[in-house]
Amino acid sequence: MSVVSAFAAPAEGAPLERTTVTRRDPGPLDVVIDIVFAGICHSDIHTVRGDWGPQQYPLTPGHEIAGIVSAVGDEVTRFAVGDRVGVGCLVNSCGQCDACRRGLEQHCRERAVGTYGAVDRDGTITQGGYSQQVVVTEAFVLRIPDSIPLDRAAPLLCAGITTYSPLRHWNVGPGSRVAVVGLGGLGHMGVQIAHALGAEVTVLSQTLSKKDVGLRLGADRYLATSDPETFRSLRHSFDVILNTVSAPLDFSAYLRLLDIDGTMVCVGLPPEPMSVDVAQLIGGRRSLAGSNIGGIAETQEMLDFCAEHGIAAEIEVIGAADINVAYERVLASDVRFRFVIDAATFA
Amino acid sequence: MSVVSAFAAPAEGAPLERTTVTRRDPGPLDVVIDIVFAGICHSDIHTVRGDWGPQQYPLTPGHEIAGIVSAVGDEVTRFAVGDRVGVGCLVNSCGQCDACRRGLEQHCRERAVGTYGAVDRDGTITQGGYSQQVVVTEAFVLRIPDSIPLDRAAPLLCAGITTYSPLRHWNVGPGSRVAVVGLGGLGHMGVQIAHALGAEVTVLSQTLSKKDVGLRLGADRYLATSDPETFRSLRHSFDVILNTVSAPLDFSAYLRLLDIDGTMVCVGLPPEPMSVDVAQLIGGRRSLAGSNIGGIAETQEMLDFCAEHGIAAEIEVIGAADINVAYERVLASDVRFRFVIDAATFA
Repeated sequence: MSVVSAFAAPAEGAPLERTTVTRRDPGPLDVVIDIVFAGICHSDIHTVRGDWGPQQYPLTPGHEIAGIVSAVGDEVTRFAVGDRVGVGCLVNSCGQCDACRRGLEQHCRERAVGTYGAVDRDGTITQGGYSQQVVVTEAFVLRIPDSIPLDRAAPLLCAGITTYSPLRHWNVGPGSRVAVVGLGGLGHMGVQIAHALGAEVTVLSQTLSKKDVGLRLGADRYLATSDPETFRSLRHSFDVILNTVSAPLDFSAYLRLLDIDGTMVCVGLPPEPMSVDVAQLIGGRRSLAGSNIGGIAETQEMLDFCAEHGIAAEIEVIGAADINVAYERVLASDVRFRFVIDAATFA
Repeated sequence: MSVVSAFAAPAEGAPLERTTVTRRDPGPLDVVIDIVFAGICHSDIHTVRGDWGPQQYPLTPGHEIAGIVSAVGDEVTRFAVGDRVGVGCLVNSCGQCDACRRGLEQHCRERAVGTYGAVDRDGTITQGGYSQQVVVTEAFVLRIPDSIPLDRAAPLLCAGITTYSPLRHWNVGPGSRVAVVGLGGLGHMGVQIAHALGAEVTVLSQTLSKKDVGLRLGADRYLATSDPETFRSLRHSFDVILNTVSAPLDFSAYLRLLDIDGTMVCVGLPPEPMSVDVAQLIGGRRSLAGSNIGGIAETQEMLDFCAEHGIAAEIEVIGAADINVAYERVLASDVRFRFVIDAATFA
């Protein structure tokens, strides 16, 4: 076992502080990764603050991990020391159930093992990427293409796949009319990916404050949801609405913007049940759906797609000492578009 | 023009009474239909009582029409005097828009013309099937296969297509696991059609009072939603849930019963917005959807399918004098499963 520097929440809601985590000795199928960058996801904040249920503390969050392989187990065949790799929200699953066999490890019947705060297969609680090193079984390690810088790759492991997977599942392609609701960490990836898939992309954001960057990222239109005219003018306009906002929204107003057979996919989890006017579903054979990250093979496909299309996350690199400030800024939507921690500063 | 006997609501909420309606002289593309049976749909009651918005009165409802062609216009090619025909919820649409061209006349961009209470293309208000005769443009007339008795065919024009269309759209077939919520006019058609499509069918009903007939109609299982064990035992059990109930339900509890990628389709319209736990959508990439009757070509397909599989509505034939009593019994769910009015009694 090795003890490595890390940052962890010592208790629910407490500021993160420097600590250490213990990483297992690599088994035959394990890959040891020296972490270079770790993204800050809004989920990290929800989790360490107990918003999604009680946790065991201290807890090291982080599931947007980019690094370099520093050792591999005897039976590892797909990775070698020096490889550029990533780890996302999952570090294990049963591998045997129908969901795992279909490449939907996130829906594993035995519950997939999350990268932090989950009970690992050896009974320990997983500790995430805000640390110097992580040990992950080969099947859950992704290859980061050479053309994507590691810092800008880290957020792809969560924000990238969370938006790529539903866009692909709901068949977004050339000619698709896609609205992306919210231009944050998730939304700014959704815009780039939908654009690269050939869709006509509209950003629906509370204000026009990020319009310039939205258009630069590939949006064809950028409209403010604070303007009632937006909802009047866009009725029946979209095939897919990708809702990246976890705050409560007037879902029925958005459903009206879908054309016949359109789908509104939620990838953010509101803190309370949402109200839905069923007439808006019946009226156009519309669907309200949800999507949760993506499977491992699809995550690799997303990374390769991003490399091919020159896509990566827009980031602000910080040192570990600034994590707690960064958390406050994430909560205030004051980040364009993802904080990424330089793992050298965990030491 | 011809004046024919009918039953109409003279004012919002008033009991239906005998009256007459005027039918236009048949144009070149019109089919004159001597009505033989007219089904009573729950929508008729909602509409004449003003539940779905103000109407012009007197209003003759009825959009489950079965009859015999008594005359045809000069340019009618597909029907001849003596043919057994039906008319459903629609009597016209623009025919030019993308929705019409795709066979989705119910979603016509210019608004399809409903069989009653709608502004017809000539500016008059359409009057429905509780009458002796109706004149309908050829394109909206359906052929009733010889093997289906006209009385048992009438409800197929609404209840049949309303359940057939979503089951087909969401790819129900051999091996599909389908739950039908509610065993009323819609549900009893949904069970028969899903069974004929090869699905494994479970009825979810408030009580087990109709279990025998549900199993006879093709259900493999019949469970009571009043029993909490139903919701515990059926988690992740269905590919499609066809919700035929228009009363408010705990949607989130039903969504939990869907397997990965499952869809809950609503064909009944609750009187108020429903609360939805988005976590139940995200958790299994599930969808909540709606469906509204079906297009004309699909309605013909449904009639032919029903004939092929020996399916028809289970009905109770009444005389026109009993319409108001029948309405009360529909509201009390005291009908197995559809009232059909003998049109001879309109005179």
